[in-house]
Amino acid sequence: MSDQKKKMVEEITSMDVDFAKWYTDIVKKAELIEYTSVKGCMVIRPYAYAIWENIQRILDGMFKATGHENVCMPMFIPESLLQKEKDHVEGFAPEVAWVTHGGSEKLEERLCVRPTSETLFCEHYANIIHSHRDLPKLYNQWVSVVRWEKTTRPFLRSREFLWQEGHTIHATAQEAIEETERMLNVYADFCEKYLAIPVVKGRKTESDKFAGAVSTYCIEALMHDGKALQAGTSHYFGDGFAKAFDIQFTSKENKLEYPHQTSWGMTTRLIGAVIMTHGDDNGLVLPPAVAPIQVIILPIAQHKPGVLDKANEVKARLEKICRVKLDDSDQSPGWKFAEYEMKGVPLRLEIGPKDIENNQCVIVSRFDRSKTVVSLDELEEKIPQLLAQLRDNMYQAALDNREKRTFDCTTMDEITETLEKNGDGFIRAMWCGNEECEDEVKAKTGVGSRCIPFAQENLSDKCICCGKPAKTMLYWGKAY
Amino acid sequence: MSDQKKKMVEEITSMDVDFAKWYTDIVKKAELIEYTSVKGCMVIRPYAYAIWENIQRILDGMFKATGHENVCMPMFIPESLLQKEKDHVEGFAPEVAWVTHGGSEKLEERLCVRPTSETLFCEHYANIIHSHRDLPKLYNQWVSVVRWEKTTRPFLRSREFLWQEGHTIHATAQEAIEETERMLNVYADFCEKYLAIPVVKGRKTESDKFAGAVSTYCIEALMHDGKALQAGTSHYFGDGFAKAFDIQFTSKENKLEYPHQTSWGMTTRLIGAVIMTHGDDNGLVLPPAVAPIQVIILPIAQHKPGVLDKANEVKARLEKICRVKLDDSDQSPGWKFAEYEMKGVPLRLEIGPKDIENNQCVIVSRFDRSKTVVSLDELEEKIPQLLAQLRDNMYQAALDNREKRTFDCTTMDEITETLEKNGDGFIRAMWCGNEECEDEVKAKTGVGSRCIPFAQENLSDKCICCGKPAKTMLYWGKAY
Repeated sequence: MSDQKKKMVEEITSMDVDFAKWYTDIVKKAELIEYTSVKGCMVIRPYAYAIWENIQRILDGMFKATGHENVCMPMFIPESLLQKEKDHVEGFAPEVAWVTHGGSEKLEERLCVRPTSETLFCEHYANIIHSHRDLPKLYNQWVSVVRWEKTTRPFLRSREFLWQEGHTIHATAQEAIEETERMLNVYADFCEKYLAIPVVKGRKTESDKFAGAVSTYCIEALMHDGKALQAGTSHYFGDGFAKAFDIQFTSKENKLEYPHQTSWGMTTRLIGAVIMTHGDDNGLVLPPAVAPIQVIILPIAQHKPGVLDKANEVKARLEKICRVKLDDSDQSPGWKFAEYEMKGVPLRLEIGPKDIENNQCVIVSRFDRSKTVVSLDELEEKIPQLLAQLRDNMYQAALDNREKRTFDCTTMDEITETLEKNGDGFIRAMWCGNEECEDEVKAKTGVGSRCIPFAQENLSDKCICCGKPAKTMLYWGKAY
Repeated sequence: MSDQKKKMVEEITSMDVDFAKWYTDIVKKAELIEYTSVKGCMVIRPYAYAIWENIQRILDGMFKATGHENVCMPMFIPESLLQKEKDHVEGFAPEVAWVTHGGSEKLEERLCVRPTSETLFCEHYANIIHSHRDLPKLYNQWVSVVRWEKTTRPFLRSREFLWQEGHTIHATAQEAIEETERMLNVYADFCEKYLAIPVVKGRKTESDKFAGAVSTYCIEALMHDGKALQAGTSHYFGDGFAKAFDIQFTSKENKLEYPHQTSWGMTTRLIGAVIMTHGDDNGLVLPPAVAPIQVIILPIAQHKPGVLDKANEVKARLEKICRVKLDDSDQSPGWKFAEYEMKGVPLRLEIGPKDIENNQCVIVSRFDRSKTVVSLDELEEKIPQLLAQLRDNMYQAALDNREKRTFDCTTMDEITETLEKNGDGFIRAMWCGNEECEDEVKAKTGVGSRCIPFAQENLSDKCICCGKPAKTMLYWGKAY
């Protein structure tokens, strides 16, 4: 490693001093991202891309297990196609990148780089769907999309980002609504089980739903600093797109009907969620399921006879059960400790002459640096246990943080006082359902509506803003 | 299935009548592609995308086994960045798509959608490479690229296509040249072993090499109609890009040096190669390694007691060893036979009441419709054997076709006569190394240089065109 690299491992802003700076430090120093000359467009470096590949593999398996097939639509949408659904174009046109020339020739019609692909799927559905026998279509694609955002942050808000977008079309509204809910549950399970991030499931308010949707479901997570992050969304479209794109099918009763659609997406923003949920002042802390390296083997006094041989033997055994790396470079142990802590490797396995004498090794958890002495005879049994334990500890810590930072309020003043006293977090408060109240709460307290949680509680009979009868409890918060 | 679908299975142009029409028929009727309103941009439908996923998985494993890591660069290249390497921009600028606006604002500098990513990798290398310890970097990415072609054909030449692009950077020229050759060999192995397509390995002539490369290696395959198809390329760049982008590293001897680079790519065009190498008048014939379904189980007289139960039992067993599907829909057996022949499924497993009585099934090969009666006790043993045999038969048939269509010529007239008599194919002929002769052969006979094969033979001492001393033997042909 170069001297520059050594220096990088040493320097990192404390998250309590400046959370935003801490975040960008990690993103650079764990070698996740490198900036490019195009604002908001990043190089996703091998370590981050390997996390994304793990996310992809697991999610893709969950999609296929629920009957979905992958496809690939073009990246370009003609302007006239984007404009077919009125709400949709209003939502997206202001933030698309426009292609106007191919080579030296001006295009007859300009094309936008897809910000999302509903319009492309609809054009395709109109071509291939004719009969009830052609339904449902349960599609997904893994691509990148472009949204010309003004303010950008690595992973959280970039002009180009990677994602998956599921698009399905069904004979009945009920089937489509079930699909919307099913995929939200898949997303929630994925976040909780594999990323160790607890989420709140709910529905967006009218003002906050996807452009063109009847309803948008979402999962909301709370970051370490108390800000909320939308981790995934699932939209029910009704038959609005079908009508706009003239998609019809002949039903079993031989009648022409409009089908019902959904779409749902998760993005590389999940990597940002992992960083901000689990990271600490020593760097990343990665959930084992998506960690590119799950166990880093560091030989101690590796020049002594037998140490490297034994370390390689341990590596060969562990390769069969997890993602493992052995670092036998000539860097100092101290440097290596810092490097793999920065990279968030879940378990560090130390093995030196003394350990070998005792037929053991020392395993250190990235989560809390707790040490476990493990007999070399029990590696295959203990490592999966320690990884599972780590995931559980991470989940519990994230849940504790969220609970510590979730506050029930019944007056506007209470919101302001709570935030002043405790810092950012989720505020739970009742709402009349009126958009003006939603806006007023945000203007006066700084927290916007995050979602109408499926798990409702009655905190009061009155809207926190206007005092009129409350319809629902809302989660409020400052959002990434 | 709809009536329209039924009709589609029935109609297909014979390849001897019109090969081009046969090709587009298959592409549509096997449900590989659907056109969109943007010329040259296709929907890759689930069946084709599943083939691509299999190609990806195998190739990605081969890349990782040779030490490469995946990354992801942005899709946009600022005009000034594209222009940094003179030859490169000259080659690509005429065929790029230009983004000029973000939302309603005109960009300060226009951006092209990547036609290839050398310039982006170089910008990144300049940021992260400082010392010999930072080398080599062995990177790859799976993305789509855009080239604004005038004439387009599904898979073979489209304005947007999917590919992988490997990009590596090394301390020495020798290492980089070895990498260029290594990856060409990986490509050749992949084509021959997994796609059952024999290839000629060679080097492109000066006039035909990649824009900015010192040398371009390639693999060339011969399609069923005798036209050549470039299936993969691997480029050695020397230090030209490093100089243009100011990438330097401190060597072990503490001197500033320029590193040496390579790039290499394979695309969705491989799917076109599979269609045109192996397909027949009944549709696709897929190599087992990339077939989305390797065995289709068709129950015969499925309404009879016990048939579906047994078919499902067979399916459950085969799922453990291959990709299998059971079609128990109410379509007729004849319709199903035609459908899965069109889809190129390697093996059809028929099982009916008589078979069950005899504890057997009938397995039909898509390659030659040969039937094998297999005892139900031996399924796990026989199916892999039959799949392997099928791959070998496909490879041999493709090799036979190539050999039948490869001709050695020593005069220009001989080329013309050979093509007139035998139709298209590879012409092997000697060449002086002069670009004018290369052009003249193409102008007079219609065949262009495909490659300077690594396996050289001396067919004559004279250039086929000018009669001066020959330097090398070339493969010539008409190309897709």
